[in-house]
Formats: sequence, structure tokens, C-alpha cells
Amino acid sequence: MRNLKLIIQYDGFLFHGFQIQPTARTVQGEIEKMLSHITGEDVHVQGCSRTDAGVHAYMYCLNFHTDFPIPADKLPYVMNNNKITTDIKVLSCEEVSEDFNARFDTKYKTYRYLINTNPNEDVFFRNYQWLYGKPLDIDAMRQGAQHIIGEHDFRSFMTSGTDVSSTVRNVFSLEINTPSENLVEILISADGYLYNMVRIITGTLVSVGEGRISPDKVKDIISSCDRQNAGPTAPPQGLYLYKVVY
Amino acid sequence: MRNLKLIIQYDGFLFHGFQIQPTARTVQGEIEKMLSHITGEDVHVQGCSRTDAGVHAYMYCLNFHTDFPIPADKLPYVMNNNKITTDIKVLSCEEVSEDFNARFDTKYKTYRYLINTNPNEDVFFRNYQWLYGKPLDIDAMRQGAQHIIGEHDFRSFMTSGTDVSSTVRNVFSLEINTPSENLVEILISADGYLYNMVRIITGTLVSVGEGRISPDKVKDIISSCDRQNAGPTAPPQGLYLYKVVY
Repeated sequence: MRNLKLIIQYDGFLFHGFQIQPTARTVQGEIEKMLSHITGEDVHVQGCSRTDAGVHAYMYCLNFHTDFPIPADKLPYVMNNNKITTDIKVLSCEEVSEDFNARFDTKYKTYRYLINTNPNEDVFFRNYQWLYGKPLDIDAMRQGAQHIIGEHDFRSFMTSGTDVSSTVRNVFSLEINTPSENLVEILISADGYLYNMVRIITGTLVSVGEGRISPDKVKDIISSCDRQNAGPTAPPQGLYLYKVVY
Repeated sequence: MRNLKLIIQYDGFLFHGFQIQPTARTVQGEIEKMLSHITGEDVHVQGCSRTDAGVHAYMYCLNFHTDFPIPADKLPYVMNNNKITTDIKVLSCEEVSEDFNARFDTKYKTYRYLINTNPNEDVFFRNYQWLYGKPLDIDAMRQGAQHIIGEHDFRSFMTSGTDVSSTVRNVFSLEINTPSENLVEILISADGYLYNMVRIITGTLVSVGEGRISPDKVKDIISSCDRQNAGPTAPPQGLYLYKVVY
């Protein structure tokens, strides 16, 4: 069977996350419905990660097996011509080796988080940024972020109730940028992520930026391995899966 | 009775326009439900204009009569605290004279239309801009726009089937700006608008910008008083009611 790799973008606002669910609208559900319709097969896709309800993807990778003979580079056109699912955009498709797996073959993934500090922000970005509405001390956030870079046990930054064999992850880079007035961008790259890890790191760095947690305290939060010491979980709508590298 | 004037913002994506309808979700319907709940009265609001499904408002004005004794400046806080209707934001409220009418007392209104010329635009702005995706000749559009400024019979720029006593309107200004790369902004101010007038003017100027209509032809389109000679009706999601002046 052919193995096709799709790169897609999606607006998470009206999705209950990536992973298929029996009754709720999900990205996987919509994609499988589209592909099954096009190929006439019962298509199952393998996504590169789960994303929560409201979380967006600027670049998301998935793969699926099919016998359908459509040229790979024509599939994005066919899928984007669908006028119903306008919140998913297929960026590219290529044929890959039989054993490629979008989830297990990732080298690293980058997430982006957008925080808006404008106290009077318009209503239009509320599903695409965290409308935080207060000033943040960016220098303090950058100092705090330095402690997060590297290989650590990130148990303090995981929503409990998740079952993983190891809570050690390697954060390669963590940048805090100000791309425009009132906008703070957090870019984080790691070999893997625990459940809600980016949102809890963001919430913690925001606590640092508002002066409630000192930058050096972040080191202690990590070593405590206790979720209670970290900051709140930032809301989903500011989070984007930004890049997947194989 | 008190007469209160509200300035609101709304994201038109999930509304079937401003005007109340028996079964569809509308801005007027949501606002009247909120105000009736707060005041315990059967509140009816007078909006400054009708907007179509998908059209946004950066600044929209309405008024309503009530005996409820809440201080005017406290009402925005109470209304914005509603966590259900997050696509309406109340910007201000003030008590006005008994005879103020948000619809009939307008001096002029300004609309803004946003066109995105990037052929590979992300999925995230599709409800807030017209993702046109091709280059436009801005100079030609500006030349064409000059013919629209002034008092004219704008019948060529009206969707037929609407019953109005006069189709003469006065366009005070019509600017075409490029606020950022790939973004074209049309700002139009007039004493009044015919049905779909801004969207048909936009569609016509885009036809000028793509070279299908010569800039000077716009003069003939106006004087023909025939909708068939104008360009297509631009889609609703790029349109914002931008300013209302009394």
C-alpha cells in the first residue's frame, strides 16, 4: 500500500481537538471523512500529536495508507476544494516509505504561544491569542525561561492523571519574542511534551512576568516535581503547533 | 424612561447578521436577551444599521429605553462579564436625551474592508479578511475610487429587490491603503448605504485592480444605473462597520 504524508493547517476554534471522538467534531474525524470519501476506502490517519480543543496548528503532519492512485501532489487541491471544512487547509502531500509514522518518527516539534497584553484588545482575536490584557516583564520571563531549557524531569509541568513511562523531556530552545506592540510570542522546541506542558510552562512564565514568581524560582519548581508549585495552565486558544521536524 | 446609548464591537462569524430573527442567532437577539435578563424588562434595542451574516463591527451603536436604575458606566462591565456571548464586547454606555435614535441620527458611517492578496495565506484569517490571493494594482484602484467620491445615484451598486425611496447617496471619502504586506484596506465614509453597496463597490474596485475594468470605466458604471455593469459582490467576512458619527 502507498503511504502518504500530509502537512495541514487548522483553526482549532470549532474542533474538540485532533483525536477522533464518537460524537464531537474533531480534526481527525473530518480528515478521515474527507479521505474516505475521496478514496472510497475506510481511511485511518496517524497524526503527529494530540492537540486539545481550541488549540491550533500552523503545521501539523499526519500519514495514512491507501491504494487509491491519485498523484500525491494533486490531493491537497482536491481536499481544499471541499467548501464545508474551511477550517482545515492542506498544505502539501508526498509519498513516503512504507514504514514512515507521523507520530513516532518526529525528531522534535515546536509550539508557539501568543499572549496579548493590550487591556482594550478588539473582540476579533479572542480565539487566536490569550487576551491577557496586562503588562508583562519580558526580561524576567526570559531569565525564568533559561532554567527550562535542557533535559529535565518536567513532572511539575504536566496535568496529572496522564500515564506516561517517563516524564523526562529535552527542551532544545525556548524563545520569548515581541513581534509587535502588545504581543508576546513564546516559541518552544522539544523532543516531546507531557500533557499540557506548553500551557503550564506559559502560565508559569506569565506568573514570572507579572512578578508573582521570581525568575530563579523556576529552577526550584522544576526540581520539586510538583504541579502545585508551577503557574496556572494558560488557555488553549493562544497555542499553535508550529513546526514538526522528522 | 431613560435612553441609553451603547457602543459595541462584534465578531460577525457566528451571527446571522444584526437584525433579530425568530430562529437564527443574531446580534440584536443576543443583546436583547442580555439586557432583558439584566433589567427584568422586555428590552428592545434600536441599532444604527443592519449588517449581513458574517459582517463584523469594530464600532456599532445602538440605543434602548429602560427604567432600570443601573449607572450607565457600569453596564458594559455587567454585560461583558457574561461568559456565553464572547463574540460581542460592550465598549461604552452613556445616558442620552430621550429622543436620540441610533439609526436616524447618524451623520455618517465609515466601513472598512480588508482584502488579503497573499496566495498562501494561513487558515486563521479566513473569517476576518477576504482571502483574495492575487496581486492587485492599487494605483488603478485609487484612480477608479475617485469617481465614486461625491453625491451620486448608486443604483449600480445595490443588490436588487430592495425597496428604498432614493438611491442617491453621498460618499465623503474613499481611501485605499496598504497597512501591511499583502493587506489592502478600503475605508469608505458616506451619509448612508444601499443594500450591499460597500461589498459591490469593493468587488468593482477589485475588478479594476485586476485589470478587468479600467479605472475610468467606473464613471460609466455609476451613470448606467445598472447593477450588471458593476463588479461582483465581495464576500461578507472582509467587511467591518468601522465608525458611526452622530
